[in-house]
Amino acid sequence: MEKKAFESIYQEIFPFWKEISEKDRDYICQNSHAVTYSKGETIHDGNECSGVILVRSGSLRLFMMSDEGKDITLYRLHKGDLCMLSASCVLEAITFEVFVDAEEDSECCVVSGPAFAAVSERNPSIRIFALETAVGRFSDVMWVMQQILFMSMDKRLAIFLLDESSRIGTDTIALTHGQIARYMGSAREVVSRMLKYFSNEGIVEVSRGGIKILDKKRLRTLAC
Amino acid sequence: MEKKAFESIYQEIFPFWKEISEKDRDYICQNSHAVTYSKGETIHDGNECSGVILVRSGSLRLFMMSDEGKDITLYRLHKGDLCMLSASCVLEAITFEVFVDAEEDSECCVVSGPAFAAVSERNPSIRIFALETAVGRFSDVMWVMQQILFMSMDKRLAIFLLDESSRIGTDTIALTHGQIARYMGSAREVVSRMLKYFSNEGIVEVSRGGIKILDKKRLRTLAC
Repeated sequence: MEKKAFESIYQEIFPFWKEISEKDRDYICQNSHAVTYSKGETIHDGNECSGVILVRSGSLRLFMMSDEGKDITLYRLHKGDLCMLSASCVLEAITFEVFVDAEEDSECCVVSGPAFAAVSERNPSIRIFALETAVGRFSDVMWVMQQILFMSMDKRLAIFLLDESSRIGTDTIALTHGQIARYMGSAREVVSRMLKYFSNEGIVEVSRGGIKILDKKRLRTLAC
Repeated sequence: MEKKAFESIYQEIFPFWKEISEKDRDYICQNSHAVTYSKGETIHDGNECSGVILVRSGSLRLFMMSDEGKDITLYRLHKGDLCMLSASCVLEAITFEVFVDAEEDSECCVVSGPAFAAVSERNPSIRIFALETAVGRFSDVMWVMQQILFMSMDKRLAIFLLDESSRIGTDTIALTHGQIARYMGSAREVVSRMLKYFSNEGIVEVSRGGIKILDKKRLRTLAC
């Protein structure tokens, strides 16, 4: 991929792009490469510094792994999403291991970790962007963990959706998030976020018309 | 408390203190207050912006809470520690609720959230410090959650310490972290971090001579 192609992608994604010098912009582009990952391929493995990964198509999965090889999905990255947690040399405060693999064939741009780190040393706006991206992702992960491990909100929502779908006899539930929250005795924001999580997992599809159940089997597993 | 007293505390704690203008330093001190919390007192309650809290003595506990009032301790703050997660108006990327209470009578300095946010808007070094503090804490929390919920490292270490203590017939286990790791088939770093977590929880005391069990009852609960 040519410098110009990276340039046009980065100016869309990086809010700091116009604030940094042309030299630094060139440096980032020169240290970028286009990579295509095949479905199932391991992209990032624990502690190494694999760089800053930008998804152009397909989807990546971030997860934690146990000694025995079990894993917990933290979140998924889709088109336009940026992975900072794979660049431990950029964010030294990150001290736990994450893994990344490709869920589908995925086209990505990867900025080398040391190059991104060098430029962010010189530009506080880049450092702030990288840290804010990481804090935002951590917040999402904490929230999901809290809901799943602690309040069983995933289970409660799965039960509600299955019950409602069998009651009305279709897979599309034409209720607003606020209505569902009231039925469940929860808050609209909680229901919306959990539906977004279900939707990222491919369990439901959320549209203006309501919630369509795509994967009843997984919903049943969650409900048990 | 007088401006000078805040000044002498902050120059120890804030790495950015000498980089910002005298005006901004004054502004932070003017918007600080000394607070004494009584044991058991709620200090921060979910979404509100309670400001940046610096512990001068005693200890605070950060936790998540469920709808039913159950809680999970995320970590504890001791003398010299700083709580950024209570300042959601400073770090907008934080979108989940945490709670803070006093575990002992605690003396703290509190910088008002809006004042800290205003100064950090003008000073990237403050913004970076605040974000790095948050990312470091998140990393610790993620690590603990991963170990406890996923790998049962807390359980495995508790079992090891109890077995070893009963084998040698004393409560002080004179082994290095590396030796324990080898016995457990784990990594030294993992054992050290989990021992630090146990120590913060008051379950053990870690010194050069070894690990002293302080709370055998809690260790037994963890082991079951």
